[in-house]
Amino acid sequence: MIKEEVKIVEVGPRDGLQNEKVILPIETKIELIDLLVDAGFTTIEPTSFVRPEYIPQMADSKTLFSSILKHEDIVFPALVPNKRGFLNSLDAGAKWIAIFTATSNTFNKKNTNATIDESLKRFDEFVPDAIKEGQTVRGYISTVFGCPYEGETSIDEMLRLCEKLISFGVNEISLGDTIGVANPNQVQVIIQRLKEHFDLSMMAMHFHDTEGMPLANILASYQEGIRIFDSSVAGLGGCPYAKGASGNVASDDVINMFHKMNIKTGIDQDKLHKASRFILKALGKEGSSKFFQANEGRKS
Amino acid sequence: MIKEEVKIVEVGPRDGLQNEKVILPIETKIELIDLLVDAGFTTIEPTSFVRPEYIPQMADSKTLFSSILKHEDIVFPALVPNKRGFLNSLDAGAKWIAIFTATSNTFNKKNTNATIDESLKRFDEFVPDAIKEGQTVRGYISTVFGCPYEGETSIDEMLRLCEKLISFGVNEISLGDTIGVANPNQVQVIIQRLKEHFDLSMMAMHFHDTEGMPLANILASYQEGIRIFDSSVAGLGGCPYAKGASGNVASDDVINMFHKMNIKTGIDQDKLHKASRFILKALGKEGSSKFFQANEGRKS
Repeated sequence: MIKEEVKIVEVGPRDGLQNEKVILPIETKIELIDLLVDAGFTTIEPTSFVRPEYIPQMADSKTLFSSILKHEDIVFPALVPNKRGFLNSLDAGAKWIAIFTATSNTFNKKNTNATIDESLKRFDEFVPDAIKEGQTVRGYISTVFGCPYEGETSIDEMLRLCEKLISFGVNEISLGDTIGVANPNQVQVIIQRLKEHFDLSMMAMHFHDTEGMPLANILASYQEGIRIFDSSVAGLGGCPYAKGASGNVASDDVINMFHKMNIKTGIDQDKLHKASRFILKALGKEGSSKFFQANEGRKS
Repeated sequence: MIKEEVKIVEVGPRDGLQNEKVILPIETKIELIDLLVDAGFTTIEPTSFVRPEYIPQMADSKTLFSSILKHEDIVFPALVPNKRGFLNSLDAGAKWIAIFTATSNTFNKKNTNATIDESLKRFDEFVPDAIKEGQTVRGYISTVFGCPYEGETSIDEMLRLCEKLISFGVNEISLGDTIGVANPNQVQVIIQRLKEHFDLSMMAMHFHDTEGMPLANILASYQEGIRIFDSSVAGLGGCPYAKGASGNVASDDVINMFHKMNIKTGIDQDKLHKASRFILKALGKEGSSKFFQANEGRKS
């Protein structure tokens, strides 16, 4: 029986804020996470444990964790690039980690200074330990629908990486349209290949709003059986590959579509609107969510 | 056999510009239409024949027509609210007209100062004459997916209006999501009802980008068999029911999705980009097309 509800993984505090120019005070980040918890999100990507010289937006990750762990039932996957990041996340009290690789060697080298296979070797250095420590691991695969450097990427490579991640013990895999070029036909083809090999209930889709198509891609994914979607409050984040373009699909838009379709998400839209308004005010920007903007316009 | 191509009806010069605050010189409008013809559009809604005291943006419709009729193979449906408008359009040389009503009485009264049935009586005063004159008639039905005043509207009323319009001799009907609240499930339900009674090949869908969902709604419509879509170059137009919200779905976004899905539209995307850039510059605004913005960003 197909589940008539979906899980929304809120990636705004990490994937969103990391791509914003403004560096926010830690109190603002904590308040944002509190508002998102209050809105009903059960999985929130709060931060990453990376070198602050590379990603200054995330330099406060340890302190942040000490403040958000009060939300005991919420899954907070901490993004870690390597063993060092993992140990730091463990030290901060994180119980879930997220690791990442890509289907494009060029992209992966530019993003993590490692080829795809080097990234797998890095995972081998700490993921089995993490699982032994009782951690739950989420795996991201980037550039599944296209690469800014290599163009088209390989579905077979995606399948190989899924298999590798599963062999490490990863319990959820998020397939990323890193540059926002996916289309519904491609989504259908890719999910049909996935289904031949894996249990779709562990697969998430991560779409960007670069070309205005994320809700069409999410609809196509839902029709093919996907029930987990990553999105970002108020559409936080940008697209480094197209100046001025939108980044992550906005949680506001995704949740509005599902609710209008009578598909449950567990999120309170009024409370989400409050969180969006809060963070956009803090960043001093308009945001990319059309639903948020229309909602603001109706209220004014 | 399902046709693997679609017709895009470009409504920017009328439906789009009518909702922009800036009133453009006629030369700019003519150049826009020339650029759209060059991009490959075969149906373009160029203007309306309405009282200039109500819609000052369209006061130059007669002169405009005399300049665009050089494009002999292009269908230019002129929007007319009544017999007077029809006679003026005939005088200007228009060969196609478009008429409009709605599934909501309140909306129709506010929009045209006539109840639904009064609007049908008005049509009876000139549409049969128009057809006798050899005109081709397009019919719009607004608020099919929801009304800003009445909320939900009736599918049965939509079906009744389709039947009435067809009995007048209308050869294409465009179903409008006037306030941009449609969702893919609703789209599916409505098209399935339409199919029971009418030939879908004469039905067009007219979506707005108010909530970021138009491409998902277009995908759902396509899956149900619709092959004609209205859209507006660069997303021209706004939404009078939600301040600052987007209006018509952008032709740029619609055509990009179809081309990525390997569905033909007959439009040259580079030339469309040129038209979008031209009109946005003339209006001094950014536009609401995410694809256009991403494209500009990649080029810069």
